[in-house]
Amino acid sequence: MTTTLLCVAAVALCAAPAYAQSTATEHQAAAPVLQSIGALEARLQPARLAQRLASASDPGRDRMLERVGAAWAGEMQALSDWIGKHPEVGWHEEKAVDTLTKVLRAEGYRVEAGVAGLKTAFVASWDSPAGANGPTLGLIGEYDALRGTQGAFHGDQHNAQTPVALAAALGLRAYMTEHRVPGRIVVYGTPAEEVGPPAKTIMWKAGVFKGADILVRSHSTGGGTGRSQAGFGDCCLNISQVKYIFKGRPSHQLSSWNGRNALEAAVMFYTAVDRLRSSLRPEASIQGVIPEGGVAPNVVPDRAVVDYYIRYPDEVYLEHIDSMMAHAARGAAEATGTTVELQPYGEYRDGISLGTLEELKYAWEKKLGAPKLLAEPGRPDGYEETGFVTRDIPGVGVTAYSSRAPNHTYGMLEDDFTDIGHTGFVMDAKVMAAVLYDFLTHPELRAAVREEHKALSGMLTQYLTELKKTYGPEVGSTAAN
Amino acid sequence: MTTTLLCVAAVALCAAPAYAQSTATEHQAAAPVLQSIGALEARLQPARLAQRLASASDPGRDRMLERVGAAWAGEMQALSDWIGKHPEVGWHEEKAVDTLTKVLRAEGYRVEAGVAGLKTAFVASWDSPAGANGPTLGLIGEYDALRGTQGAFHGDQHNAQTPVALAAALGLRAYMTEHRVPGRIVVYGTPAEEVGPPAKTIMWKAGVFKGADILVRSHSTGGGTGRSQAGFGDCCLNISQVKYIFKGRPSHQLSSWNGRNALEAAVMFYTAVDRLRSSLRPEASIQGVIPEGGVAPNVVPDRAVVDYYIRYPDEVYLEHIDSMMAHAARGAAEATGTTVELQPYGEYRDGISLGTLEELKYAWEKKLGAPKLLAEPGRPDGYEETGFVTRDIPGVGVTAYSSRAPNHTYGMLEDDFTDIGHTGFVMDAKVMAAVLYDFLTHPELRAAVREEHKALSGMLTQYLTELKKTYGPEVGSTAAN
Amino acid sequence: MTTTLLCVAAVALCAAPAYAQSTATEHQAAAPVLQSIGALEARLQPARLAQRLASASDPGRDRMLERVGAAWAGEMQALSDWIGKHPEVGWHEEKAVDTLTKVLRAEGYRVEAGVAGLKTAFVASWDSPAGANGPTLGLIGEYDALRGTQGAFHGDQHNAQTPVALAAALGLRAYMTEHRVPGRIVVYGTPAEEVGPPAKTIMWKAGVFKGADILVRSHSTGGGTGRSQAGFGDCCLNISQVKYIFKGRPSHQLSSWNGRNALEAAVMFYTAVDRLRSSLRPEASIQGVIPEGGVAPNVVPDRAVVDYYIRYPDEVYLEHIDSMMAHAARGAAEATGTTVELQPYGEYRDGISLGTLEELKYAWEKKLGAPKLLAEPGRPDGYEETGFVTRDIPGVGVTAYSSRAPNHTYGMLEDDFTDIGHTGFVMDAKVMAAVLYDFLTHPELRAAVREEHKALSGMLTQYLTELKKTYGPEVGSTAAN
Amino acid sequence: MTTTLLCVAAVALCAAPAYAQSTATEHQAAAPVLQSIGALEARLQPARLAQRLASASDPGRDRMLERVGAAWAGEMQALSDWIGKHPEVGWHEEKAVDTLTKVLRAEGYRVEAGVAGLKTAFVASWDSPAGANGPTLGLIGEYDALRGTQGAFHGDQHNAQTPVALAAALGLRAYMTEHRVPGRIVVYGTPAEEVGPPAKTIMWKAGVFKGADILVRSHSTGGGTGRSQAGFGDCCLNISQVKYIFKGRPSHQLSSWNGRNALEAAVMFYTAVDRLRSSLRPEASIQGVIPEGGVAPNVVPDRAVVDYYIRYPDEVYLEHIDSMMAHAARGAAEATGTTVELQPYGEYRDGISLGTLEELKYAWEKKLGAPKLLAEPGRPDGYEETGFVTRDIPGVGVTAYSSRAPNHTYGMLEDDFTDIGHTGFVMDAKVMAAVLYDFLTHPELRAAVREEHKALSGMLTQYLTELKKTYGPEVGSTAAN
Repeated sequence: MTTTLLCVAAVALCAAPAYAQSTATEHQAAAPVLQSIGALEARLQPARLAQRLASASDPGRDRMLERVGAAWAGEMQALSDWIGKHPEVGWHEEKAVDTLTKVLRAEGYRVEAGVAGLKTAFVASWDSPAGANGPTLGLIGEYDALRGTQGAFHGDQHNAQTPVALAAALGLRAYMTEHRVPGRIVVYGTPAEEVGPPAKTIMWKAGVFKGADILVRSHSTGGGTGRSQAGFGDCCLNISQVKYIFKGRPSHQLSSWNGRNALEAAVMFYTAVDRLRSSLRPEASIQGVIPEGGVAPNVVPDRAVVDYYIRYPDEVYLEHIDSMMAHAARGAAEATGTTVELQPYGEYRDGISLGTLEELKYAWEKKLGAPKLLAEPGRPDGYEETGFVTRDIPGVGVTAYSSRAPNHTYGMLEDDFTDIGHTGFVMDAKVMAAVLYDFLTHPELRAAVREEHKALSGMLTQYLTELKKTYGPEVGSTAAN
Repeated sequence: MTTTLLCVAAVALCAAPAYAQSTATEHQAAAPVLQSIGALEARLQPARLAQRLASASDPGRDRMLERVGAAWAGEMQALSDWIGKHPEVGWHEEKAVDTLTKVLRAEGYRVEAGVAGLKTAFVASWDSPAGANGPTLGLIGEYDALRGTQGAFHGDQHNAQTPVALAAALGLRAYMTEHRVPGRIVVYGTPAEEVGPPAKTIMWKAGVFKGADILVRSHSTGGGTGRSQAGFGDCCLNISQVKYIFKGRPSHQLSSWNGRNALEAAVMFYTAVDRLRSSLRPEASIQGVIPEGGVAPNVVPDRAVVDYYIRYPDEVYLEHIDSMMAHAARGAAEATGTTVELQPYGEYRDGISLGTLEELKYAWEKKLGAPKLLAEPGRPDGYEETGFVTRDIPGVGVTAYSSRAPNHTYGMLEDDFTDIGHTGFVMDAKVMAAVLYDFLTHPELRAAVREEHKALSGMLTQYLTELKKTYGPEVGSTAAN
Repeated sequence: MTTTLLCVAAVALCAAPAYAQSTATEHQAAAPVLQSIGALEARLQPARLAQRLASASDPGRDRMLERVGAAWAGEMQALSDWIGKHPEVGWHEEKAVDTLTKVLRAEGYRVEAGVAGLKTAFVASWDSPAGANGPTLGLIGEYDALRGTQGAFHGDQHNAQTPVALAAALGLRAYMTEHRVPGRIVVYGTPAEEVGPPAKTIMWKAGVFKGADILVRSHSTGGGTGRSQAGFGDCCLNISQVKYIFKGRPSHQLSSWNGRNALEAAVMFYTAVDRLRSSLRPEASIQGVIPEGGVAPNVVPDRAVVDYYIRYPDEVYLEHIDSMMAHAARGAAEATGTTVELQPYGEYRDGISLGTLEELKYAWEKKLGAPKLLAEPGRPDGYEETGFVTRDIPGVGVTAYSSRAPNHTYGMLEDDFTDIGHTGFVMDAKVMAAVLYDFLTHPELRAAVREEHKALSGMLTQYLTELKKTYGPEVGSTAAN
Repeated sequence: MTTTLLCVAAVALCAAPAYAQSTATEHQAAAPVLQSIGALEARLQPARLAQRLASASDPGRDRMLERVGAAWAGEMQALSDWIGKHPEVGWHEEKAVDTLTKVLRAEGYRVEAGVAGLKTAFVASWDSPAGANGPTLGLIGEYDALRGTQGAFHGDQHNAQTPVALAAALGLRAYMTEHRVPGRIVVYGTPAEEVGPPAKTIMWKAGVFKGADILVRSHSTGGGTGRSQAGFGDCCLNISQVKYIFKGRPSHQLSSWNGRNALEAAVMFYTAVDRLRSSLRPEASIQGVIPEGGVAPNVVPDRAVVDYYIRYPDEVYLEHIDSMMAHAARGAAEATGTTVELQPYGEYRDGISLGTLEELKYAWEKKLGAPKLLAEPGRPDGYEETGFVTRDIPGVGVTAYSSRAPNHTYGMLEDDFTDIGHTGFVMDAKVMAAVLYDFLTHPELRAAVREEHKALSGMLTQYLTELKKTYGPEVGSTAAN
């Protein structure tokens, strides 16, 4: 035959419903790990546990859920609508933060603003009158709008996220106060989800989430009300965001030989990345822009910047790409007599999803009558996008159907203010409250969650070790060695 | 979420054992067609038919098969070994052709050499003394060696192919003569399989294969003795092979501004292809070389050539890539004041494999005791690499296990001369003869083969039409429209 | 010999003191024209005429010059200093224009602001009480500051230009009023000299300068007080300024194959220009920037802009380069499936300098005791940078030594406010007034200026025709022909 | 003004008849040196000395010149014609060397073939019967043909060079034998002048020319019979010839990510050189080809070669370019994960021409009636192209008019066999013999030649030191420092 049959790595980012691993290499590396996950889930039986909790009779809990609904109807829906009509893009959500923290302070929360050095990030804590030495329940809320060609808009319904969290927190606070349940509620205001660098990674590195025993977040969806399988994965590939800053020496155009052209270096690097594409596995997605490409044509540009999003299904090979690109940047600098500085500004990695919490959430969605329930669990995918927080702290993302339109659209913005959106939001608030309530009041759930999270963390480490071994020969050696 | 979950087309070139279609787009387009194939096979029941034929008692056939074995042992094995030890690369197989055609002439074949304008291609025909108005049985034989870093070598065992075909033909000829069965045997000598352009496409376009009712070919394998599923596919993606020839204007280096630099154009085009990679689906595999990149550095190069293999899982999107690359070449020419000429020199497309013949072959392999039988049928894959011949004429490739080493290796060369190779080769000869015998003597098999081939041809057309529709919006429109 | 001796075109941009033509091709094309210029100047004897005029006894004129000095000392110096301390960059000189037009209105000028569609351009006219049917004397004034890394600053002393013109105009107005001399004085406020597009070309195309019989402008210099030879040329090569705007189709990064990448097109074009360098004569100076190179790395850039200054010693070959670059841009668009639009926004061409006016200016500089007189005349160079105005209307640039530092420096800014600057400025005002006075009052000077200007205009046309012929075979034919 | 007037270095490769220095930088660096050369020549008065020698009455010398003419007519012209009709390209001049060394052996020369490791180089020596302890007279002869599109041809008349040298040597040998003059005659057979690497540099580095007191060479010309001024220079810029060999890692196209693509590296480097052009002075002439750009499109190319001629008017800045390009190559290797090896294979540098020998040659050309005498001396230019030999050993190139056509043409080949060629060749032989005769018999000439050569060598060193100083700030610092 002309060419030997070479089995190209299977790319099936969407096809496989169950496992996040999408390439043949990942499947190979993950095989023993996936077996372990299977065994773990078989032992924990999360669906059975969830079923039992959600169907238990508990008037205190039911009263609590009614309060959540009332809080939404009373004030939170109006707050969600108001933020929806006053969109602010990432890092500039001043009005939203002002409004939200005012509400929290009024509810007796201690609010710390500007945490982790981020102006529009905040942490609001409330300790039970029965003491803080119970579980710490964390709720994450976003509020940044999308940047559209016609200005900022809430086409991803982040406007609703914090009001949803507040409604849940209000219900829980009333219950804990009334029933003298010790514990703490913490609302985390996390800015700029739609633009880099990832705020949650920064906050996580600064220790902001330390102490939380569980974290929940809600998010809009146009898909349907679903849950994830236990495991690790992400929505949109692992990502490294890096700026490459080239510096040269200016000179007038008419004596350009006295200069060293940073734009030539940047363009050479940008082109080199294209040249590398066939030396990288085809599942890579690498795209860049040149936000600074010189100012005046009559002066040799002495500064130019290239900005890349580098994506790959797994983080091990992603780091190999990062390294190849760093070499490409340094090579372009050497070739042009310029210098280059690398500024990594964003990292997204696989997150952990827990069968115990996913199934519990789903049982409550069923119980409370969430619309458009999806029977099959989706691929694993941490409850927040950076992945890092989910590796540290167990949690779950709550996503009831809230729009007829896909994410990031004007259609989804519209549904922000209709019954479809409002119904989804209050559902999210109630499910969130129910999950936290069960976690607060059922030690056996807390134990199962902790066990599963610890086990999956260890398996993730094992999986990455296996991946490194698998890629070893390909990644490690270069022609120079 | 930062980015909407975009389901990237699933690439699983090896994973799917049954269907050749490897991308999500193909699966979508092929879905109704695959259903039709299923219905067709359910109706024809090829395995059952095969079973019946292979297990039938038939002393004439058994005698014929003995003769095939004797022909191999008597002369053909020595001929295979001799060619194996006198390797000649594609288009230069003079000694092999001389030797083979001498044998055929001695056996009473009319030999036409240099067919289709190809020096080392030939057609050898023998008509039964009972008349030629029976079925025409075609046997394809290759004989070119691989180009290795240490010279030519038969690491793909093409040396055995024509001796195998001759052994089968000798057995059949004796049978037809003795039993006065009308019909014709044609041996097709097809050169240069390992290098482009594809000889069989050229011969097919020249009408060389016209008149054959069935075509068989044997091939070595290190994998195991197997068969393909019915359907269409190929081993190594659909391929377009194109040379891009840039022409400029020469000038001395010291007055280079009087020249137009064809190498600059070629390098610009080569780089443009890299620039296009992210505008093409990731399953594409495009690789090029610059076989002519100028001669003397003190003269502006006025000629430069870039040579590309362009591959894609399906031929519809492949044509889109061909068109994008043609635009890239013309753009590079315009940008540099040069001209470009495109020379497409090779085409490989999905071939058709027939359940009737695949199962019959497999039944004979079982019956005759072929080594290392594979239980599961492989993905569809025409019996010759270009695909085109298989769309016109029904046929089957016979591939009994003949080496412990993979294709294209020195290990496979070694087994050329050991029992492992020799056993595989004589098995191929016997199976080939048995399949042709059944085709010659069983009208109901001929009818089933014809029906299946016609139906699958129609479904291939339907599938391609569906693919075109699916790609339409993406492929058809450009920014200019 | 290894290589034939190929005589490379002689580039001597500075060496030749007398002629603007700097390449061998230009010298060849200009040879007969330079002879004609020599003959013209020999006949007109401009130095002798100038000597006679400047040494003539004329109390009215002397009184006028005193008034110019007084006007400078009285108000104009303070105005120059004020503008110098309130720098405004090109197209934003609102405060300067406000202040200057207020002064002009106060002096009885009709002021038309925003001429030619340019917000900070103006024309101020004053008609003699003796009637406007005498000569129209034009004075050009600039006022834009440089853009520096620490903000705007008057490092080229444009702050002084209009106050200098006003001082001269005040003296002349008083004289014309007192002596009842018919005629008109027009002050042209021309913005944004330091940034493109060239305001004077725009104003000229809009007919703003129509009707002027002579135009004068002053300019700072750190070199010495000099004059130009008669002929045509420019300071800094002929220039074309062009933006190339690429448009593609956006798509999310994860489905980049649905997009067409405008940044790839822009980068391909930018690189193509480098590829063309060796196919262009080495005297070309071409430099570009990428002011728009995409915004978000997760969206396929659908717009990117490249901005070039293209320079060549002569305008004929410059147009050839323009055309080669247009082809390169279109080629890059075709290669990437994008579109491109060309936006030429600036043109600078050779200007005409007149021996009659240059020598007259120089005679006055000598007579009035200007500092650092340069004995040798410099290369021809129109009195304003675009060149076009000087081809239409005779004129002269007045440039007395006004700084110890070179142009475009903080040193030159400093001297704006010291005796060195002030001395140079008042000298410019007086010389300007004296030249205009002589033009107004000596019909034989007017006749000589008109004759010389008409003759040189014709010779420029002849020279360009010759150049076109010379370049013909090289420029006209491409490989395609 | 928009841009300060920046004086671009004057390039006048042909214009300046007298000095080799062609850029403004060179002129500046060379100014004191050129003064010293002027003073040296004024003191030595070479034209006067030459006049005296050529007009002296000397019957022995006249008899010797007659013998030269007879030798040419007797055998050498036929030998020249024979080589002219049996052209052999560089490094393959076997027949020519065979024939020539046979003649030399027959004349009593000791012939050493294959000197300096070069198969077709030779040294042939003859010692006077009066002893070898007189001057050693060296004659250089070439014999390689040009490569034309229709095969090899002697379009540069190298066929005549060694026969011319032999005719001169025969005359001198007869004279030295008869008159018992001690000394030695050495004929140097130097191959492959038309192709790299430069044979004479290799022979010089191997010490082949050691011991020669003077070297002469003849060469055809279509220009006229001329001489050079004293000084240093070259015909066609200083040249560095370098191959850049990139090595990667092969892999099949369908798993290209396991490879490292050497062709991508080569193309990136080739493109990087274009990117550097505007960062290099415009007098640079850099041109390359890609003689090895991959073989098979289905294998990742693991080897690619770029071959460059790098030229600059002076060798100091040339080394700066060499260094910038080495960085570009290494940068391209780093960027692509490949390695690069630099193979410099040719160097051409300014040579020394001596007034004493140039004027002596010219006086003889006049005296003997050479055709088409050029009155003005040309720019300095060593007597052989590499320049290096001329820095070590004094010498002169003899170039009487020998064709109506320019060098490297079929017209010049034609004249090889006509009176025009034959007349020029015998003239060269006689002038060569006369110059060597004077050098042999006039100690005061030897002293003057030695003094001038030593002084000019020193001045060349001084000039290069000055150049280094001048370029220092520009060349030495990079953005990284």
